[in-house]
This record gives sequence, structure tokens and C-alpha cells, in this order.
Amino acid sequence: MKSQEDALKKVVAHAKEYGFVFPSSELYDGLSAIYDYGQNGVELKNNLKQYWWKAMVQLNDNITGIDSAIFMHPTIWKASGHVDAFNDPLIDNKDSKKRFRADVLVEDFAEKFEEKAKKEIEKAKKRFGEDFDQEQFESTHPKVLEYRKQKQEILDRLAKTLETDLSKTKELIEELGIGDPETGSKNWTEVRQFNLMFGTKLGSTADTATDLYLRPETAQGIFVNYLNVQKTGRKKLPFGIAQIGKAFRNEIVARQFIFRMREFEQMEMQFFVAPGSELSFFEEWKNKRLNWHLALGLGKENYRFHDHEKLAHYANAATDIEFQFPFGFKELEGIHSRTDFDLSAHEKFSGKKIQYFDPELNKNYVPYVVETSVGLDRLFLAVLSNSYNEESLEDGTSRTVLALPPAIAPTKLAIFPLVKKDGLPEYAQKIFNDLKYDYNVMYEDKDAIGKRYRRQDAIGTPYCITVDHDTLKDNTVTIRDRDTMTQERVSVDSLRELIDPKVNMKSLLKNL
Amino acid sequence: MKSQEDALKKVVAHAKEYGFVFPSSELYDGLSAIYDYGQNGVELKNNLKQYWWKAMVQLNDNITGIDSAIFMHPTIWKASGHVDAFNDPLIDNKDSKKRFRADVLVEDFAEKFEEKAKKEIEKAKKRFGEDFDQEQFESTHPKVLEYRKQKQEILDRLAKTLETDLSKTKELIEELGIGDPETGSKNWTEVRQFNLMFGTKLGSTADTATDLYLRPETAQGIFVNYLNVQKTGRKKLPFGIAQIGKAFRNEIVARQFIFRMREFEQMEMQFFVAPGSELSFFEEWKNKRLNWHLALGLGKENYRFHDHEKLAHYANAATDIEFQFPFGFKELEGIHSRTDFDLSAHEKFSGKKIQYFDPELNKNYVPYVVETSVGLDRLFLAVLSNSYNEESLEDGTSRTVLALPPAIAPTKLAIFPLVKKDGLPEYAQKIFNDLKYDYNVMYEDKDAIGKRYRRQDAIGTPYCITVDHDTLKDNTVTIRDRDTMTQERVSVDSLRELIDPKVNMKSLLKNL
Repeated sequence: MKSQEDALKKVVAHAKEYGFVFPSSELYDGLSAIYDYGQNGVELKNNLKQYWWKAMVQLNDNITGIDSAIFMHPTIWKASGHVDAFNDPLIDNKDSKKRFRADVLVEDFAEKFEEKAKKEIEKAKKRFGEDFDQEQFESTHPKVLEYRKQKQEILDRLAKTLETDLSKTKELIEELGIGDPETGSKNWTEVRQFNLMFGTKLGSTADTATDLYLRPETAQGIFVNYLNVQKTGRKKLPFGIAQIGKAFRNEIVARQFIFRMREFEQMEMQFFVAPGSELSFFEEWKNKRLNWHLALGLGKENYRFHDHEKLAHYANAATDIEFQFPFGFKELEGIHSRTDFDLSAHEKFSGKKIQYFDPELNKNYVPYVVETSVGLDRLFLAVLSNSYNEESLEDGTSRTVLALPPAIAPTKLAIFPLVKKDGLPEYAQKIFNDLKYDYNVMYEDKDAIGKRYRRQDAIGTPYCITVDHDTLKDNTVTIRDRDTMTQERVSVDSLRELIDPKVNMKSLLKNL
Repeated sequence: MKSQEDALKKVVAHAKEYGFVFPSSELYDGLSAIYDYGQNGVELKNNLKQYWWKAMVQLNDNITGIDSAIFMHPTIWKASGHVDAFNDPLIDNKDSKKRFRADVLVEDFAEKFEEKAKKEIEKAKKRFGEDFDQEQFESTHPKVLEYRKQKQEILDRLAKTLETDLSKTKELIEELGIGDPETGSKNWTEVRQFNLMFGTKLGSTADTATDLYLRPETAQGIFVNYLNVQKTGRKKLPFGIAQIGKAFRNEIVARQFIFRMREFEQMEMQFFVAPGSELSFFEEWKNKRLNWHLALGLGKENYRFHDHEKLAHYANAATDIEFQFPFGFKELEGIHSRTDFDLSAHEKFSGKKIQYFDPELNKNYVPYVVETSVGLDRLFLAVLSNSYNEESLEDGTSRTVLALPPAIAPTKLAIFPLVKKDGLPEYAQKIFNDLKYDYNVMYEDKDAIGKRYRRQDAIGTPYCITVDHDTLKDNTVTIRDRDTMTQERVSVDSLRELIDPKVNMKSLLKNL
């Protein structure tokens, strides 16, 4: 646990020091759970967007994009269920005046039984050494079984109270003797539902102003545009609509850096299909989306599916693609078979027909939907934390390198004149000008070459080019590889050919 | 005026019919002054963003990007002056219950004198025919001079009341006898200031929740990150920080389609310079930004500078690049020399030093700022309305064509199999798959070729390729040019070479 925290801390510090992610409004001591992307972060984020957009929209002739507004008609959030059900159960401690999620208090309490079980397992592991059969032990040892049973009982009771009656949740907290985690005080208020949507008012007069919400997801912007896109694009089922955009949730406990923010960005695609075909498309999209992630090359072992056992009311199948973050396996992308829940709800609340005439079946129906939804900021964190390496080098020194997938690195190529004289800057500038239309290139003439290499390593630049005095004679330069740190003497004319296979986004896309 | 309205109406209708812009939440009868970008609109908008980002950020080694959050610390908007001064003076009619901008009521009234002057000029023009010297007439004719004097007096009085005392603005409205434009009622309330920022609350408890604003401009996100970017990017003055992002203004009278929306997108760049050098950089950026617009090829005659005579309190020079929209010349981009107003204000309100150590002058100072700020949605409307043409063809038919700059067209190339059999679809698909990694390509097999051409004309696709039976024999296809409507038989292998010079964004960028 400690080393996980350390790993995250290092990534956070590196992200700030090298212009990837800054705490928002830092000049004013920050704003909780909001972050800004810096000069290198914005390029990395844009490249991730582009990788998704090309793969999902431009390379698929049956998926189109849209860009719907953050402000939407408030009734949309009635139809979607967010007004009534997008809540967290909150409880206040009357002494400390602190507010908590009631379900998290109980879950954390239940987790203590799991920790006890783990301690028993660790003890046994030490005792039995190599012969230890952990699976066998966990399934038979009375103490472990008892702890886990207690944990499960608490979680089951919690789930039941949350569904039926929040006053019972409070009773559970009191019965378990749960206190404020910091002060221990057990002086609790009632549990109340708190809606996670941010509200605002559109218009200027008290009597005509409309209560709006900042959208908590981009998906509904796709559903309410389904008819417009289908008709004006003359689309036949199955087809998809995709969009990238901001969403907002007033999280009570926002944490883990950019993993859970109050303002974040989603990349969502809704695939509209004939009823009955949704589960096979669900399987197809599970595989396609996993392959998309794997193509980034962060390591197959860092991904896993987590199928939902308990399905949301609108879904008939759902899975998460989880990634191994510094704080463990967590959701990176969700893939949901949402049935006709959303479109039917919008039919009902808008009073307008949302039907597709299927020429093959010769009938009308409300399409079913399979959704793929990635958290862009989570994806950014996955890439950043996975790429962060501290390496000990043979010569006894060390370096910090971001081994980013080259095609999404903020800078593809850094160009150095060895010295700032003798015509070297002019030659280097010429290379810069020649390549800048094709790749994001950086020109850098400060400090010794070794230092420049280290700085490019730290921002993940795949290649560095050095122009020296020999260059002027024979038009060759040194190209240095970020990962192997090898340097090679090559002709200036061969540069594009050398780097393109690795840094061009096509290389990623063609692997899909 | 009528034909201007018609021109805009046609563009709005076309934008909807062909998937460029939909009214937001249309399924729920819309949301005032909010729009969604459809399947073709989002591609066009993304291409405009990319054109700006590449030209401003990636091709300039002294400009970097950022992406700061919409939510910012509320004190930032105190420092920027938005809390106190970002207001519209509003007045209510007690009978009609309608709300108006008091300044607009008076301005519209003053404009009537201008219309009278124009009528005199038109009359004289008819009377004198070709010999008419309009300039001479305007500067001497007593009625014209009188009307214009009256107009100017009203505007001057208005400006004075707005600056000093809003009760005087109401007196002016009463004195001029201005009534509700629809009902004529003169039963007015007092004039009150109304802040244009949208508010929301961050956090969950009444006592700990923070009042936030949705940012009304992206510029402040750059100013508060100046230190972070300068230090982590080791930047030397002069250098710029650029960003693209949403901003929000609770406009009282939002109109003219996507020209003035309540949710909109800005592309802003703040260039930090040494005090005293700002006016020469201001001139430089005026020219650079105009050239950037001109490279799009919408016609030099459609742009003009409009220098601000009355400068905002933070500026020592300011100009607008105006574009000829269907409703006349209006602001497309603003270029402002903002002095050290913003950074100094943030020094004061944050209590932190925002200084640059200038190694050449060997001293510290607060940098001066030259800003360039484009409205992305306005730019979109400029391109769309300028490109919209209804053409009468030689054969007596007509077509609607969007003559978009090819490099920013949503689809670069449409590929048609002549018929859906005999192996033509397979061949066409092969071309699609070969080109799709380089260009946004569309595959289309519905309807007759003529109809397909018309549909691609309507969305501005520069080239259409038809695969026919001869293609199978000799690997040639027909390539049809959107603008000339000529068709040419070419080798499949030459396609990339043929279209690239026109559709690759490099062609635009290399003209800068």
C-alpha cells in the first residue's frame, strides 16, 4: 500500500515538474479535484483523442461523430434517471461537521474484516513457506472464512438499506459502532441523498430562468441526437455515433489525482442495433475495445475484464476494462448493453417517436444500444503511470524516462545544434522547418547534449537529433533512441523514413 | 435586410439538413442559443481547430499549448474584473413582462436616425444617377448631417449614463419616449446590472460549498498558468501560451445562429513580452492573424480591421478582425494589447509574485501581454456561410454546393462503386481501405451517381471517385472535381498524388 502511494506520488510530481498536469488554480491554492493540462499534457491528451477518433469514427464507415453541447434541456436528465437516481447517500458528523458518504463508511468498516483475513493468510504463508497452498488455505481456514462471511454480511445489509430505506443505513452505522474516521465521534445526522449533478440557471429573470444541469455524461447528447443523425446521415442499422467531451460530477470524495475528477472528459460511442442482436455486438465491442487498448503496448497483463454481476436497471450485459493503475486494478472503460432503455425513455418524456424502420424486417422498432465509454483522463493516467520509469544506468548514474508509446508522445523529435555557432543552429533550424509539418518537433539549444537528452527522456520524446560540425560536411546527424539510448550516424535525408514507422499514428491504427 | 435574413436562413436550414449544426435538445423543443454539431459539423470544426493549433502552437517553437479546466477558483474572476464589471444593464417592461438590454433599446432608437439619413442618400442617388458624389453629399446635406448629429448625441448620452448612473439611463429611455418594441408600452422598471457569468456550487454542504462560475473566457486559464508553464517549460520572453476550450455567457439577447451562443468555444493565445515591446508585437500579430484567415481563401474583400477607438481599461491597443457574415461585417477575432493588467491583478489577488527575470536587462518585471482570440463557432459560421452557393447549371438544373476550403472539408474523398455487384464494391472498398489512414474518406453505394455527386457537393467533399467496370480491366477510375464538376479518368495509383496537394492541411500551413 505504501509503495503504491509512493508510485502515484512520483507520477504526480513528475507530471507537474514536466508540464503534463498542474493542479488547477494553483496560484490561488488550488481547487479540489480539478486539474489543468500543461504544455506536454495537452499534446499527449490530444494524441489520445485523435487515436480514439480515428479508430472509432474515421476508420469505420458505420460510425460518425457529433459534438453536442454541455447544456441540455433539463427534462433529458429526468428521462435518463439522473434527476431521481444519480445520488450519493451522505451523512454528517455533528461534532466534526465533516460530511461522508454513508456507503463508503460502511464499506471501509467491512474492509477491515478482509484485512484481518489477509493477515491470517500472510501469517500462514510465512509459516509454511514454499509448500503453502493459498487457495486451499483460503477456502478452508475457519478464521479466514469467518472474517469473509462477516464482511459479506455487512455489505449485503448495506446494499439492502440503500435500496429500501436510508434510515436503516444510519441504524447500520450505529449498530456497527462506526465513528468519524478522524475524531471517532459517533454523533451522526440522518442519511440523505445528494444529487451529483452541478446545477446552474439559464436566462436572466427569476420567473423565466431555467434550471439547468451540467451534463454528468456525454451519452445523452448522443441519444437525443439519434434521430437527427440517422435521418440526415441516411444511416442504416447497425451504426454508431461517437463523441468526445467534458462531463461534470459533484463527487463527494474525489481523489487519486486525475482518476476521479469533478470535471472530466469522456470518449463515448453508442452503437444502435436491432433488438435481439445486442449481445453479439456487445461481445464484438468488448474485443474491439480491448484490442484498441492493447495496441498502445502498455502490456497485456495490465488489463482485465470485470463483468458486472449486478446490472444497472437499464443494462442486460455490462463489463469494465480494468487497468492496473498505481493504486490497483480500476475501471478504465465501460462497455454496456443498454437495451432500448434510453431511447424509450426519451420517447416517453419528449412525446416524440424514436423508431427505426427496418427495411429487411419490414417493421418499426426502438433500436437497442451497445455503449463503449472511456474516461480520457483515466486513459491519460494509465499511459503516464505505466510509462514512468526510473532506470539505473551502467555508468552508475540514473535517469527518469517516460517510455510513452511513440505515436502518442507529445514531441516526436527534438533537434539539437551541438553548439550555438558555426552555422549549426541554422542547419538544425532547416531540419526543424522541414519536418515540422509532419511531426510535432522541438528545437532545443540550451545546455549540454547529455542534459538535453535527459529532459527529452523525461517528456517521452522518442528521438533526438544532434547537428554537429561533421553535419556541415557530409549531411549526416546523430539520431538517439529514447529507449535503447543508442546513437547512430545517419543521413539527414533518411530521417523521415527512419522515424515514421514508429511515430506516425498510422502505425498504431494499422495494428487494429 | 430581407435578403440578408434569407441568406442566413438558408445556411441554417442547410446546416441542419446536412448534419452540420442541429438546435440543441431539439427533441425537447430546443434550448435557446445552444447548438450541437452534427456528423459533418464536428469534422469541419475539428479541422478548424487543427488548422489553428498547428499554425499557432506546433509550427511556432515559442508558443506552447495548455488545456485548463472550465472550473476555476472564484477569486480569479474577482481579479479579472468579471465579478464586478461583466454586466449587462437590464430593464423590464412592467406590462409585457419582457426583459431588455437598456443600452440596446437606446442604440436601436438612435439607429433610426441613421436609417433616415440613408433614405435621404438613396433618394439623392436616384435623382442624380451616375453623377452622384455620395461622399460630397453626405458631408454637406443639412438633413443628413442633422440626423447623424442626433444619432451621435443619443449615443454619447447613453455612454455617459452607463458609466455613471443607471437611473440616468432610465431617464434617457423615458425622455426619448422609447417603448417595448412589440407592445409600445412605456411602463419601465429601473435599470439594473446583470452579471453574465453562469454560477454553480462545488461541494455538498451548504456551509462548505464554494460558489463557482463557468469561465466566461479561456484567457484567465492561461494567465493563472503563466508561472507554471514558464518555469517547467524553461521559457524565455517573448513566448506564447495557447488554448482551445469552452466558455459560457448568460447572454440576454443571444441570436444570429451560432454567432452568439451561451455556450461557445474560443481559441486564444496570450503572448508574453517585455514592457515597451508590446505595440510592435501587437502589429505583428495583427498581420499574422489576418494572413492566417486569408489563407483559407474565403476572399480578401470579406475581412477588415476595426480598430477600437474606446479602449477597455486593460488595453493600450485593440482591434477586431471583422468578417462579412450574412448579417454584415462583425467581429471574428479580437487582438488586444492587454498590458500587464491581468498578471498584475493576479499578483495582487493571489498575493504571489508573477515576475520574469530578464537576463538581458538583468531585472525583474511583470510581462506585458498581446492576446489573439478567435471565436471558433464564428469562424465555423464564416466558413459555412461563405462556402454556401446555389448554382444554376448549363443544363437548366441547379445545385447547392459548399465550396469549403478543401483542406478543412469534413470528407476529403467519396468513393462510389458504380453498381453494387460484379466486384465493384470490393474494388471500391480496397481504395477506401488504402486511403482511409491518410484522409477522411467516405464510402457510398446508394442511389444513382448523379445523386451521390449532389449529396457530396452539399457537404463540400472536394473529390468523388467512381469505380466502374473498366476499373477492373485497367485500374483506372473517374475522379470528379467538386468545383469544376469535371470528370477525369485517372490511374488508381495516382489518386494520392492527385488529391494531396489540395486536401492535405500542409498545403494551407505552408502558405502562412
